[in-house]
Amino acid sequence: MEKKIENIVLIGAGNIATHLALALSKKSKIIGVYSKNGVSARELAFKVNTEVLSSLDNIPSCDLILICAKDDAIDEIINQIPTHFSIAYTSGSVDLHHLPVREKIGVFYPLQTFSKDRFLDIQQVPFFIEGSTENYTNELIKLASSISENISIATSDDRKKMHLAAIFINNFSNHLATLAKEYIENEHLNWEYLKPLIKETTNKILDSSPKEMQTGPARRNDKQIIEEHIRMLSGTSKEIYTLLSKSISDTYFKNQDK
Amino acid sequence: MEKKIENIVLIGAGNIATHLALALSKKSKIIGVYSKNGVSARELAFKVNTEVLSSLDNIPSCDLILICAKDDAIDEIINQIPTHFSIAYTSGSVDLHHLPVREKIGVFYPLQTFSKDRFLDIQQVPFFIEGSTENYTNELIKLASSISENISIATSDDRKKMHLAAIFINNFSNHLATLAKEYIENEHLNWEYLKPLIKETTNKILDSSPKEMQTGPARRNDKQIIEEHIRMLSGTSKEIYTLLSKSISDTYFKNQDK
Repeated sequence: MEKKIENIVLIGAGNIATHLALALSKKSKIIGVYSKNGVSARELAFKVNTEVLSSLDNIPSCDLILICAKDDAIDEIINQIPTHFSIAYTSGSVDLHHLPVREKIGVFYPLQTFSKDRFLDIQQVPFFIEGSTENYTNELIKLASSISENISIATSDDRKKMHLAAIFINNFSNHLATLAKEYIENEHLNWEYLKPLIKETTNKILDSSPKEMQTGPARRNDKQIIEEHIRMLSGTSKEIYTLLSKSISDTYFKNQDK
Repeated sequence: MEKKIENIVLIGAGNIATHLALALSKKSKIIGVYSKNGVSARELAFKVNTEVLSSLDNIPSCDLILICAKDDAIDEIINQIPTHFSIAYTSGSVDLHHLPVREKIGVFYPLQTFSKDRFLDIQQVPFFIEGSTENYTNELIKLASSISENISIATSDDRKKMHLAAIFINNFSNHLATLAKEYIENEHLNWEYLKPLIKETTNKILDSSPKEMQTGPARRNDKQIIEEHIRMLSGTSKEIYTLLSKSISDTYFKNQDK
């Protein structure tokens, strides 16, 4: 029989932990928060009206320990937790089968970018669930369904692939914006002018095929403008402009006569 | 005295020409459209209820010829137009001072991505104006003000820099989405799952500092995950992942001890 997850201990008090704790605390009970960072742990415990755990040695009895920690800390944390506890973790890339074997261990991965102090409608966030047994998978699905409408079962491989695509979509696009903003501000121009373009770029990607919507000098294979732009740049931005322009041109012109 | 621009001839019938013609035709009159592509010219002429011009040899008398052509065609088009005509062009990167000298020649550059069949609120689009004389600049500003609330005077240099930043924001982000979508579909996964992330990524860029909002394995300098992702990719995507991850790590860790 599936057990209903009611009492949850959180490990971690960062961006994901904060959003999950706030959402989960509406239907379940967060009975403790542990984080290496004591200040963050106290802040989060205050937000969800619970206790700070001073170490992993005295975890109270609970239905789930949810680990919202950095990828490279997960293995070590699990090794400190007695084996009778049920565990889940929120990583996009850590393979369930590379972790210590447990009766109840699983994945509770939200595909979204979280910031502590930013509101986000968690109901729309896709969650990818994987459990050590079918029963435990179902327990985690029920828990996820209490906070989101968008739940899927995914293997570690598929989750890792979604995470990799998410890095292109989020991390890299955000970094391009960082570089563009830095450039604009170094040239004493106004970043605000680019905002309507940022909005429309995204609306197009959401509404249609980005491949068909591609525009710009590389899409037209306009080498004169590309070379002029490359001359205007320096450092890593120059390398990025060169490589991405080449990638765009190759996408549309590789099999055509030059 | 500034002259009011009332009768406009359009050269070009692509994405920008279509949106500008539709917007301008509300307060001004489009009296003819010329394009090398006869089908596009007829389509656009039909949309704004005007005539197709069969060549540049018989341009009717007008207050402005607006050239919405590819960058590398602008010079040649201008050389075919008798010198008594007033001219403006919509390019982000073509320098006004590199074009044939005319009494009335100027720039009418909308900083936005246009697609013919997609509605766009042109009132919000930033226009960058530059004219051969102060009077002519003012004429073009008045014309732009009839369709947008966001008008600035900009030198060719500043316009070129805005355009270069726009390429990072639009062309390159769109290409990253193209690569991510291709990857997801090749792996038989569902692109729809990434849409909430695409929206939130953009909202964060619009609301706050992308530099401060950066997340992901490169931001954490998590080399193990980065190396695993690089192993999962091939071809140009692998090169792009490698270069952008390096650029992110350098942005945040370059001056720190490793």
